[in-house]
Amino acid sequence: MAPAVASNCVTLMNDLPLDSGQVLSGVEIAFETYGELNADKSNAVLIFHALTMDQYVASPHPITGKPGWWVDSVGPGKVIDTDRFHVICANVIGSCMGSTGPASPASDGQPYGMRFPVITIRDMVRAQIALLDQMEIGQLYCVIGGSMGGMQALSLAANFPERTARVLAIATTARHSAQNIAFHEVGRQAIMADPNWREGDYYGEEPPAAGLAVARMAAHITYLSEEGLTEKFGRRLQDRDAKSFGFDADFQVESYLRYQGSGFTQRFDANSYLYITRAMDYFDLAEEHGGRLADAFANSKARFCVISFDSDWLYPTAESRHIVHALNAAGAAVSFVELSAPHGHDSFLLDVPAQDRVIKGFLE
Amino acid sequence: MAPAVASNCVTLMNDLPLDSGQVLSGVEIAFETYGELNADKSNAVLIFHALTMDQYVASPHPITGKPGWWVDSVGPGKVIDTDRFHVICANVIGSCMGSTGPASPASDGQPYGMRFPVITIRDMVRAQIALLDQMEIGQLYCVIGGSMGGMQALSLAANFPERTARVLAIATTARHSAQNIAFHEVGRQAIMADPNWREGDYYGEEPPAAGLAVARMAAHITYLSEEGLTEKFGRRLQDRDAKSFGFDADFQVESYLRYQGSGFTQRFDANSYLYITRAMDYFDLAEEHGGRLADAFANSKARFCVISFDSDWLYPTAESRHIVHALNAAGAAVSFVELSAPHGHDSFLLDVPAQDRVIKGFLE
Repeated sequence: MAPAVASNCVTLMNDLPLDSGQVLSGVEIAFETYGELNADKSNAVLIFHALTMDQYVASPHPITGKPGWWVDSVGPGKVIDTDRFHVICANVIGSCMGSTGPASPASDGQPYGMRFPVITIRDMVRAQIALLDQMEIGQLYCVIGGSMGGMQALSLAANFPERTARVLAIATTARHSAQNIAFHEVGRQAIMADPNWREGDYYGEEPPAAGLAVARMAAHITYLSEEGLTEKFGRRLQDRDAKSFGFDADFQVESYLRYQGSGFTQRFDANSYLYITRAMDYFDLAEEHGGRLADAFANSKARFCVISFDSDWLYPTAESRHIVHALNAAGAAVSFVELSAPHGHDSFLLDVPAQDRVIKGFLE
Repeated sequence: MAPAVASNCVTLMNDLPLDSGQVLSGVEIAFETYGELNADKSNAVLIFHALTMDQYVASPHPITGKPGWWVDSVGPGKVIDTDRFHVICANVIGSCMGSTGPASPASDGQPYGMRFPVITIRDMVRAQIALLDQMEIGQLYCVIGGSMGGMQALSLAANFPERTARVLAIATTARHSAQNIAFHEVGRQAIMADPNWREGDYYGEEPPAAGLAVARMAAHITYLSEEGLTEKFGRRLQDRDAKSFGFDADFQVESYLRYQGSGFTQRFDANSYLYITRAMDYFDLAEEHGGRLADAFANSKARFCVISFDSDWLYPTAESRHIVHALNAAGAAVSFVELSAPHGHDSFLLDVPAQDRVIKGFLE
């Protein structure tokens, strides 16, 4: 059964100060909610979405019509039980699914484009805290996020420690590594190399779809494991018996990547991709707190749960251990589990029963 | 001391039959030689170059002016001693440094562009065997190659087993994995997405440099290790004290990648990148020999040496073990060593003393 869902968009009453020193006014936040908020507002769970995801965590995507990206885990009677919790998922600022981003109108009525300020993960969290303020929700039951969602969960725990009782961070990191930055930079350069990008001023014209597709393809490889790719595709040919000795997609993996690349351009704005990857690359929670990660969590009284996947080479288990060691040093209550799953980074989005058990236990 | 070097270009007397069924006529092969060929022509060592390398193994590159790509290992008194060996390194067909490739004139006098036939690793080897025939060199003392060079070394051992006494295959694989194909496909799509590519018909016009630079950047990440990138760059900023909150290359790793990308476009042809990556993706030595890799080596009496690097995630040690197991099954004499080096796939090009010792021992 699908959860009762409400689609909302609110305008933040106050200006939003940003890490860059700039200020955003009239910020809109689009969000979905699932399940009822109880009378004392103690059952709210905030789910943070990842880079290319959105607020449609358990409701159909309005452009693609596909089911919500975590519909297996969020719903009535499911692991994140919407009969029990009021689940909120908001589109991050900088994105393109209703919250203020580079495609939104600036004060002159024209799209921001590259005039949009560079934002950080903490800025994304600030915007969602402002949303919670307007909803008059004080302390969340739990914040949950995978990948960039996990960065937001950690950032909230560090910067707004009183706002949640529990923090669940999955397949994530406390800082972007040089390799992480490098892969993102390739994607940004692919977008910026597309002549349709026009320095970001392409709204109303042909968007830089070819560059965005290449960016998505490069990133997508990092979301999967070598083992998973081999299992799923190996060297199998696509709809043919022999190699074509040409440049068509002979191999299934080529065809799959091209499909991933072109599909993505139907639902995502290239400038948003630039801004959100930049925010991730800038993320370094220790640096924000004087250089010592444990200090980031000094004021948190929340319980933490950290999950990693053994086949995730984008944010490998070592990154999670780094977080857990810092939480230990800060005296926080933390449980940690590395799960075995063959699907690489994307495992957190897939049906991994062991993950369900861990989440269920943590939310009890 | 630099080795005595001779730059040569010969036209193959015979037509070159290709795996695709097509035939190339009037094939030119550009090659460098170092050291003297002895009277009985028993001291010739053929070095195969990798994807983006060329015949300038130990002599300055004519475009960049940089030293040869393996000058630390090849020269008088060096590990591959040109006082003792006559070292030959030929530009592969499909490339752009003098051997016939997509930029070469077809029979109509115009550049082939995408009319150039799709070639395979075996075709590259066939062309070099034809070169050896014209040089009247029967059996080589050794063939040596890293990465795609290693594929050629294995292909020669399998398809022309009588032509070498020794085979040294470094940081390579007997077949391209789904992940290897996926990374190459991203590069090809980046090139083809560049409007300057014009279906490959860009000679005399602006080349698709932006697309080629993105392709190079994506590939370059795979040549390095996560550990090496972290050690070399970490999250250090480039010529600034604080983040710019913009899209310039804030991080050193971004600046480095951009430099790698743009530098590459000065010396390499985008169509050659398409054709050579395709040849690598098509490479599957077992498939060529009835599906069992050991059968590929059934007729070889050569001695083999296989080297891998523990930080190489492009062609990890498991790929080398796969080759070694097949050689064992074929009853071949093989030594295998996994070397520890922090630099990832590119370790084979760098100064790794342990590699020098292994090569020196193998060539005795």
